[in-house]
This record gives sequence, structure tokens and C-alpha cells, in this order.
Amino acid sequence: MALIVKKFGGTSVGSIERIEAVAELIIRAKQQGHQVVVVVSAMSGETNRLLSLAKQIDERPSARELDVLLTTGEQVSIALLAMAIVKRGHSAVSLLADQIGIKTDNVFGKARIQGIDVSRLQQELEHNRIAIVAGFQGRDTEGNITTLGRGGTDTSAVEIAAAISADECQIYTDVDGVYTTDPRVEPRARRMEQITFEEMLELASLGAKVLQIRSVEAAGRYNLPLRVLSTFKPDSGTLISYEEPKVTSRTVSGIAYQKDEALLIVRQVPENPSSLARVLCLLAEFDIEVDMISQINHQVGKIDYALTVHSNEYAQALDVLNSNLVALGASCVEGNAEVAKISAVGVGMKSHSGIAGIFFDALANENIHTLLVSTSEIKISVLVEERYLELAVRALHSAFSLESRD
Amino acid sequence: MALIVKKFGGTSVGSIERIEAVAELIIRAKQQGHQVVVVVSAMSGETNRLLSLAKQIDERPSARELDVLLTTGEQVSIALLAMAIVKRGHSAVSLLADQIGIKTDNVFGKARIQGIDVSRLQQELEHNRIAIVAGFQGRDTEGNITTLGRGGTDTSAVEIAAAISADECQIYTDVDGVYTTDPRVEPRARRMEQITFEEMLELASLGAKVLQIRSVEAAGRYNLPLRVLSTFKPDSGTLISYEEPKVTSRTVSGIAYQKDEALLIVRQVPENPSSLARVLCLLAEFDIEVDMISQINHQVGKIDYALTVHSNEYAQALDVLNSNLVALGASCVEGNAEVAKISAVGVGMKSHSGIAGIFFDALANENIHTLLVSTSEIKISVLVEERYLELAVRALHSAFSLESRD
Repeated sequence: MALIVKKFGGTSVGSIERIEAVAELIIRAKQQGHQVVVVVSAMSGETNRLLSLAKQIDERPSARELDVLLTTGEQVSIALLAMAIVKRGHSAVSLLADQIGIKTDNVFGKARIQGIDVSRLQQELEHNRIAIVAGFQGRDTEGNITTLGRGGTDTSAVEIAAAISADECQIYTDVDGVYTTDPRVEPRARRMEQITFEEMLELASLGAKVLQIRSVEAAGRYNLPLRVLSTFKPDSGTLISYEEPKVTSRTVSGIAYQKDEALLIVRQVPENPSSLARVLCLLAEFDIEVDMISQINHQVGKIDYALTVHSNEYAQALDVLNSNLVALGASCVEGNAEVAKISAVGVGMKSHSGIAGIFFDALANENIHTLLVSTSEIKISVLVEERYLELAVRALHSAFSLESRD
Repeated sequence: MALIVKKFGGTSVGSIERIEAVAELIIRAKQQGHQVVVVVSAMSGETNRLLSLAKQIDERPSARELDVLLTTGEQVSIALLAMAIVKRGHSAVSLLADQIGIKTDNVFGKARIQGIDVSRLQQELEHNRIAIVAGFQGRDTEGNITTLGRGGTDTSAVEIAAAISADECQIYTDVDGVYTTDPRVEPRARRMEQITFEEMLELASLGAKVLQIRSVEAAGRYNLPLRVLSTFKPDSGTLISYEEPKVTSRTVSGIAYQKDEALLIVRQVPENPSSLARVLCLLAEFDIEVDMISQINHQVGKIDYALTVHSNEYAQALDVLNSNLVALGASCVEGNAEVAKISAVGVGMKSHSGIAGIFFDALANENIHTLLVSTSEIKISVLVEERYLELAVRALHSAFSLESRD
């Protein structure tokens, strides 16, 4: 018998039929002897419907009242799901944030959980009931309703699982796990049975559709095993934990990519210790975040800085840098928005040499030039022209034999 | 400056436009210097939408979970209304049952309020905020969500007004007050400026579309002045209090009627003290409620009982009595579903004689036969054939000069 927290997103409870299917999935876990706490999002579409009501009144509605409004979405889901379980002859009880003491700070719209009083939850579990908890919501110390922001239900699930010392937190979604790379790019991509928290964080872009990175970080902090699995296809999904896969021969776990990067090169800046800082501070003033950074000594006393920003901020970044060429002492700024970042990630890299060789060899064999390189202990990232993206992903996937079983 | 509780029903907040109009109405009261607490229902149609979701899962859904589901309707309304007020630059705060400590028993679906902890409400008023409270809902001692049943928002408004010792509880609706009779029957019907609680209770059928009788009783118990007024037409409406109208010449305040009555006559029952009781107990066994009762000594030792039941229960009542003719010792049962009850109500009746004379004279002048008569201290009711209903209402309305001003 295990204590399991199961989280279902909006798509999983998007219709009455799906709610009934989820009810049956939960009952099966209960019948297998597990104690089950369920955390649920609003039915898909509901949050947008509520948001549009609010926007009709005020383009920027009161943050406090918006949270009061939006939390009704989850309240509807938990009531309907509890009804569906009760109808099938099992004991279930829906619970709101205030009923299980989910305390947050008072930052409406993106509050942070500060504590959970688990006594009511434990009481329901002792009475052998299935607890159905509203995700995404909390209460501040004055009893005001708060919401946790994007991906809030994942956060609720992880925090609740940690608070009750659950054996596992299972995130149900519409995909069946985390893959070695995007199956739309490389059809031979394989679902990973297991992956470490560190790898998952580096593979963020692969898992972004599945898992909110903030909740992966939290689960990692609590050492809480997290499992991603499909609501619609019974299977074991992908387990994320600190345990490294048994087969130590695996060095690279997955190939991630991001299309929404753009490259900026600031040419011929005078070489001095503060020149890079000046570039970065300038961009920070406009809230433009920089991802990859690289420098090339171009000629004596001069340096080129290459950096990447989100493609949404590319035009503005180009503008800002161009307007400050004199202040920066640069000759010009060049840019390219048609680029993509590709990363190979694996905890095995720590103890294996030669990975970088295989990596760049694979790209060279396909005649793919790399525009920027960045590495960490468990990751190698390169920037390439976007038209080479699919080819590069497939070449790397194959070079590290990711299509074969763990 | 007065402390006023304003209640708005589903139609009053049935669209974004109406919510904005209500926000402006509230702000005007605030600008006049009043302290304002607002109690709101779900947007019209919303409760039915939620109910239909529940019914898709279970024809008889879990009562506890149904309350969790339905209370989201009011939560949406209070959030939107508070937003609309805040947008207009005024301070408003939405509040749920648990936030202002509305404690009820644990009868889900028709809970009774047991107490209200007014400290949070008072705190908001002291901070000069408009408090927007969700009607219809409460929490039991274990923190479970409960609802107050039909007309629950009126009940919430009255109980909150009593708890904070409000000067007046104003029930906003889509009619502009209580009329001397149904204007669809008598176009000369006049809105009453003032009426007593006792009269209002006896005129229940006139006010049924406007006011839940349970909340009129409660307001009367608390000696809380209640005002019915229109959301859409600025006016002073009808005030319901214990104060009798100044002009004492008025003896009858209004003419009420009920179409959904049906007449049953049990013929030639042996005259003995327990025979009526036997008839009534028999009907009570089948949960059939009896309204008017009359008896006619038909011949020596035999008696006829005439009674009225709700027309929904007429067929069953006829059946029950017919199947028990032998046990009752009756010769036969006759019935007539095409009847209506008409009542003249007025506190003035207590101190004025001759009212009954005017009443029956008016009916006689129109050649209307009365099938049953029943009187109380402030009311005369008769049963007539339904086809005479409109004629009788107009004749009585005119006989008591109700079309002229108070």
C-alpha cells in the first residue's frame, strides 16, 4: 500500500465523460490498496471563460477579485469528480484550500504556498475516503483567496504530496511521459522510463508541455518521486527521481530544442572588464532576458559578444542595442532570428569523457555549423540555423543511440 | 447615515451590463453617506447550468458535493460585482460564507443559519469598504459548504442584516414593489408604499414572485424593516415593517388569489368527534397538505367535509379518499379542480366591523357563488369557481377602493 497524490489537468477533466473516466482510474488505484489524494484543475476552457467575464468588466481587474473568480473553476471540477466517485459507491470528499489549510503569501495571482495543515487530509484518509482537492488555490493569513499562477495545480499537487509525505506524486496529462526528444521531429524518439530531477530541469523544453518546471524544482527539493503519465492510456509513464538509471552506459538521456531563440552579435566592443556588464545591464533595463552568452576576441583590444534572447524580445533588443552603439563603444549590432538551440542532456556526462566529441562529430557529419556553444556539467547546448534543427536533432538522437531501450 | 443591506437576485446580476448597473446603484447609496453590505445571488441561468452538469453525472448527486458545486455561482457574481465597483474607483471586497463566519447546521441543500460572526464584516465597514457577500451559502461546524435552499439569498440578506443591526434590508428585484393585487388581473392595482409583516405574510401569494415568505417571517421576528424595490427603476418600492399605515381609514390592504387549489367534498360521513381527524390523518399519511377546511351538517347524524388541497395533489387525494370510503363511512367523494381562492387582507380589519359585509356584497353583486369561506383576524378568504377569479378580484379591489392612494 502506498500513499499517492494524483494530479489531473484541465484536459483530463475537460468533459463529463472524461471526469467519469478519471473517477474510474482513481477507484482502480484505491482498489489496489492505495491511499489516494487527488488534485484537480478547472475543466479546460473554464478559466478562459471566467477570465473573459472579468475582462468585459475591467481590462485589468482587481487582482484579489480575479482570484475569487478563477478559483470557482477548480471548485466545480472537484465537486463533479467527487460526485462521480460517490455515484460508483466509493467514499470521496471534495476539499478547498481553506478546508485543508493551504496557507500562502498575499500576492494575488501568483501566491506562494507557505504551509499546509494536513490534519483534515489525514483524517479523511484515515476514514478511508478519497480526498479530491482543488488545485491552484490557497488562502492568505487573512483568509483571502489566492491563486498560485501558471501551473499552479502542479505546484499544489507537489506541495500537498510533500506535506503528507506521499510515496509518489503522479501528474496525469495527455501525453504518456517524457521522451528522448520531440517525437514530431524524430519518430524514433523513445519514452524514458526513468530520469533524474537534474536531467528533467535541463530538458525543460521537452517537458514543458507536460510539467511546470517550478514543480519539478519543488519535487526535487523535497526528494519527492514525480511520475508523468497519461490519463487516457494506462501505462507507467516516466518516473522522475534522484535515482540514476541502473544501466550506467547511458551518457545522454535526451535531446531538447528551443525554436524561440534569437541571436544578437555586438561587434568590436573595446576589450575591458566592464564592457559585457554594460551590454547586459542595458538589456536588463528593458526586462530583456539573456540566455546564452559567448565572446570572441576579434582583434587586439576589441571583442565581439554573441548572445541569445527570446524571439519575442528580439526586435526590441536589436533596437535598444542599436540606439546605444556609441555608449557601448561598439561598431555595429548584427542579429539573426532564424536560429534554434539544441541540447544533449545526461547525468552520465559527469563521469564520461568523449561526449562532446560524439556531439560535434555528429553535427559535423551533417555539415551543420554551430553559431554558439554553451555547456554545463550535464548538458551541451549549441545554437544552429533554424533550418538545420530537425536534421541536428535526428543526428544527435542517433549518435547517442537513444532509439534503443535503456 | 444608515447601515443598509441590499440584496440582488439572479436577474439583477444576469449579465455584465446588469452587474455594472448594480455597481452604480450601490455606489450612489455609498455616496449618499450610507454604509452598504450587498448580498448577491448567482447570475440567472448559472445555477441551472451547474445543476445540469451534476445531473449528467448522477440523477441524485451527493448532497454535500452539490452544495460545493452550486455555491460557485454566487462566488462568480460577487467577484464580478466587486471588480465593477473597484473599477469605478470605490473600495469593495467580496466575501464568502466562511470569511464572514456564516455557520449553519449540516443539512446540505437546505441548511439553516445558526450564527454569523460579524467581526470581519464590521472591520470592512469600518475601513469604509463596500462588502459584497455571497448569498445562499454557509459552512457547517466542520467547515463543509452548505446551501440554504430556495430563496436562500433572501435568507442570507435578512440574517446578515439582523446580525449587524442594519437599519433596513432592501430586496432588489424585477418588480417595483408589492401591489394591492395582481396588475395582470386588475390594471388599476396600485403599488403599496407600506405594509405590515402580518399583512405581507397573509398576502404571500401576491409577494411570492418578489419575496420568499421564510425571509419575511425572519425579518418580522427580528423587527427588521424590509423593502422591496426594483433594480431597474429607481423608486422607493414597498416598505414592510410593523408600523401600521398612518391613514387608519384603510381596512383592506390587498386582494390576493391562488389558482392552484382544488376542492374535495367528502359526503355524508357519520357525525362524530373523530371523523374529521380520520379524513385529515389519512391525507397526512400521503403527505398531502390541506389548506381550507369547512363542514356542513347535511342531515341528522351525517356531515359533509369540504377541503382544499394543492392542485398537484388533487388526483392523489381523490384516489386516497375514494379507496377509503368504507373506512371513513362516507357515501362518496366529489371534487373540483377548477377553483380559486381569493383573499382580502388588512390589519385594519381587526378594528373595523362591516368588512365582511362589503366583501360578500361585492361578490353577490357579480353573482359569484362562494364554495368555501375561511377567515382570520386580518383576512377573509373564499373559494370560487376559477372562471370567476378575475371578476371577483376586480370587484373586491374596487369595493375597498384600493385603486386610490393610501
